[in-house]
Amino acid sequence: ENILESEPIVYRRIVVPQNPHKEFCTDSGLVVPSVSYELHKKLLAVAEKHGLTLERRLEMTGVCASQMALSLLGGPNRLNPKNVHQRPTVALLCGPHVKGAQGISCGRHLSNHDVHVILFLPNFVKMLESITNELNLFSKTQDLPDTPVDLVINCLDCHENAFLRDQPWYKAVVDWANQNRAPVLSIDPPMSEMELGIDAKWSLALGLPLPLGERAGRVYLCDIGIPQKVFQEVGINYHSPFGCKFVIPLHST
Amino acid sequence: ENILESEPIVYRRIVVPQNPHKEFCTDSGLVVPSVSYELHKKLLAVAEKHGLTLERRLEMTGVCASQMALSLLGGPNRLNPKNVHQRPTVALLCGPHVKGAQGISCGRHLSNHDVHVILFLPNFVKMLESITNELNLFSKTQDLPDTPVDLVINCLDCHENAFLRDQPWYKAVVDWANQNRAPVLSIDPPMSEMELGIDAKWSLALGLPLPLGERAGRVYLCDIGIPQKVFQEVGINYHSPFGCKFVIPLHST
Repeated sequence: ENILESEPIVYRRIVVPQNPHKEFCTDSGLVVPSVSYELHKKLLAVAEKHGLTLERRLEMTGVCASQMALSLLGGPNRLNPKNVHQRPTVALLCGPHVKGAQGISCGRHLSNHDVHVILFLPNFVKMLESITNELNLFSKTQDLPDTPVDLVINCLDCHENAFLRDQPWYKAVVDWANQNRAPVLSIDPPMSEMELGIDAKWSLALGLPLPLGERAGRVYLCDIGIPQKVFQEVGINYHSPFGCKFVIPLHST
Repeated sequence: ENILESEPIVYRRIVVPQNPHKEFCTDSGLVVPSVSYELHKKLLAVAEKHGLTLERRLEMTGVCASQMALSLLGGPNRLNPKNVHQRPTVALLCGPHVKGAQGISCGRHLSNHDVHVILFLPNFVKMLESITNELNLFSKTQDLPDTPVDLVINCLDCHENAFLRDQPWYKAVVDWANQNRAPVLSIDPPMSEMELGIDAKWSLALGLPLPLGERAGRVYLCDIGIPQKVFQEVGINYHSPFGCKFVIPLHST
């Protein structure tokens, strides 16, 4: 009964409806195709319809992105009781949109884990509800520091608010980030190459990756808890590439 | 500037208003006091008031409990593409209450990670809304199997529904679990010693532990993302014991 026949490994377990613009692979060689921005958006909309609400996704993305950031900051070597005098500092740059709210959720979890988080958020008179909810849970925003930080987390950009890039606060923050020499983690960055103001060392894609380019740095993929039936409904044949992890590195093929 | 004076380590960084019934400590020696059921309930109520809604807590608990379960199931050794013919099986026992909803959220994440999850939930005509939401996202319930499973996750018990224990379905499920010899992980178990039907090998406490007894097995603590100001508001002087982790083992002192 215990003799198991070894079956051939299937490496292509995710099939998307359109021919993917770009493909990635995981450490164990599983192929992860990219999806277009439109398909990614549809995937989230269908997930929402099935009850995976924005609030749940914000919480899940916040937890997983903060787990990734904690490990980038040095993990258990940096964050242990002997090291309380060396708290790491993170500058969190958030735009006034859902991606910004994701960033604030990540910041709250980092702050709960003893990281000193400096949150930048532009001042708008009327804020998105999901932003004000996150802010209630977290804390006040702060001026960006003149001193070095350990990590910059970038949640400034969003596919549908390209006009933000012309605003003075946006340009000032991009300048600040480029002058501060800390490495940058971009959460859910848009894919256009020309427009990105800040080069990332790492980028965290959510669910399935967009065809991210060079300026996104090393791409990681975050499980945001989308059930298989949701993938099916948008025409994606999906089989989890995550194994026991919730954040995995992807490699260009 | 880089010469750091070593400060003495403070091991008692969490102080609760009442004298704790029991104290635990972490791997690095930090003291984690237990809290009463009433104080724990108040903590969650205040967190809710600040915007840490039930939905967020369900998602966060589901993710962290599933991360713990995935590691109990063997982690990367068990869940890798070469092992698809050996999918682990988990029996998930859920009562008709919020703790049950926590279990279903955990089950969805396990299922997304290729674990075969058999969900037991008693049949009630009118279910709690949080249960039906979780069920919509997850899938149908199933009969408990006659064959062995790798892990039993127990979310049957809850402090305020002790009467459930007299119901036939409850007794049948307890018998099933005691006959199936798989190890048991209890999520957020109640603390009364006499009443627990199923002995746990591991228990996962949320936020701060109750004074759990022997029958809870090895106690782990899960970060459920409660901000410091919430602890303050209920009179707890809190400093995270989690370091860079979201689930940590606790030891009796």
